[in-house]
Amino acid sequence: MTAEVVTKVRSFKGFQYVYRHASTSLKCDMTFGVYVPDHSDSEKLPTLFYLSGLTCTHANFMEKSGFQRLASDHRMIVVHPDTSPRGVDISGDSESWDFGKGAGFYVNATVEKWATNYNMYDYVVEELPALIQSIAPSDSKRLGIFGHSMGGHGALVIGLRNPEKFRSISAFAPISHPINCAWGTKAFTGYLGDDQTKWEQYDASLLLKSYSKKKVKILVDQGSADGFLEQLQPNSLVSTPTAEVTVRLQDGFDHSYYFIATFIADHFEHHAAVLAK
Amino acid sequence: MTAEVVTKVRSFKGFQYVYRHASTSLKCDMTFGVYVPDHSDSEKLPTLFYLSGLTCTHANFMEKSGFQRLASDHRMIVVHPDTSPRGVDISGDSESWDFGKGAGFYVNATVEKWATNYNMYDYVVEELPALIQSIAPSDSKRLGIFGHSMGGHGALVIGLRNPEKFRSISAFAPISHPINCAWGTKAFTGYLGDDQTKWEQYDASLLLKSYSKKKVKILVDQGSADGFLEQLQPNSLVSTPTAEVTVRLQDGFDHSYYFIATFIADHFEHHAAVLAK
Repeated sequence: MTAEVVTKVRSFKGFQYVYRHASTSLKCDMTFGVYVPDHSDSEKLPTLFYLSGLTCTHANFMEKSGFQRLASDHRMIVVHPDTSPRGVDISGDSESWDFGKGAGFYVNATVEKWATNYNMYDYVVEELPALIQSIAPSDSKRLGIFGHSMGGHGALVIGLRNPEKFRSISAFAPISHPINCAWGTKAFTGYLGDDQTKWEQYDASLLLKSYSKKKVKILVDQGSADGFLEQLQPNSLVSTPTAEVTVRLQDGFDHSYYFIATFIADHFEHHAAVLAK
Repeated sequence: MTAEVVTKVRSFKGFQYVYRHASTSLKCDMTFGVYVPDHSDSEKLPTLFYLSGLTCTHANFMEKSGFQRLASDHRMIVVHPDTSPRGVDISGDSESWDFGKGAGFYVNATVEKWATNYNMYDYVVEELPALIQSIAPSDSKRLGIFGHSMGGHGALVIGLRNPEKFRSISAFAPISHPINCAWGTKAFTGYLGDDQTKWEQYDASLLLKSYSKKKVKILVDQGSADGFLEQLQPNSLVSTPTAEVTVRLQDGFDHSYYFIATFIADHFEHHAAVLAK
């Protein structure tokens, strides 16, 4: 496992890296970003994985969220991958902004046409955390996951299915009940086919309902002026005895990075509190 | 004087606006951004003008600096215009990235071909501060100016020539001695012609040397790993009895918005301290 440094830029008390590597789970070259705070040789730092939304690459979060200040202050590594395979061309992968390139939906595709490359679930759950161990002082026992919109969906699903691995979870305006909205049904039909039992393992609101693993606390922020509320359905996220979900409706905020930038400090506090233990 | 709202987005405790208007000094339609903190009807807020560097529009600072958090905390209006006229086409205005569109250099052009439109000095000094009065609760007695690279040059020049109007001044990696570097001599030859006495009124290091107006304190940050040091020449900025210039060399930082984002909090502190009096 190896990755090549594309750029390395000083930012607050650390460095913002962009890497490229040959992904084994996606069978193509991929670009991702990593922020690494200054550290001593012997240190291992908690590490957050941030999953972006539809149409984004690794760059949107890196350029627009202001996260580096908080990663520097909290001394956390932050990894922010792309949102789909990019190094391959599959017919139909560029016809719409909500399917194919830029819209991997963090699933392992089972429909043959997509199954070779569209394995973003494995990429985030297995490949990237292992790869990060080889390029940054990441403490594999202190991983967290968060994301926005489609990436909020990814963070909730991956966190709820792997709570021993990703111990802290949060989301901005996640697609909370994808089997019940247009974005989700289009993506799941395309990547997973018509068998809806396959869809259910990628639906945060359903995963929550049947959740019986270790206790988790999940922070979700949602803008009240978000134009995509019909797709997002934050009210479908309901706490259970083992999963405490706090959904905060933020008055007047939309779906943009201005919304994320405004509340991201609270998300770092949330992850830091969980991962400190 | 009027301007039309293009977008209005909630960001921290305020709104990020983008406006369009017909500029009288530039004789074309222009786009600019304004952040306005929440305020009561009777309040007037201090107002900073931020000038961007080569190739930028109003959007780079808005999306990449994270300034809204600080404008919100300090309760300051921040105005960030474009870097040249955009609504006109003049032959030769798009042939290079450091002259013409995106590269107005904050001068009033005297060479006939450019003189009708390329009047960014008047636009920033006169037109925008007056226009802001009509669209936001700007306190005209508490204006400050700052900028980056070409915009750092603009901020220093405009501040030093108008210290009664722009009471606080700072810059990130400014082009400090433009009559002595390739970017500056190309721009000044193009916009002002060969008479170098005209150039001198747009050269911050020379303006500083002869500065005899009201006392000013100027904060300048410069990255040590900036690839453009030869053009920027921060050492040409020398304090005088009435102008105290602090140039901080920031170890390992380059010319990017990661550099600006890292140190912009200190610039808000600087402006707030001056404008509080």
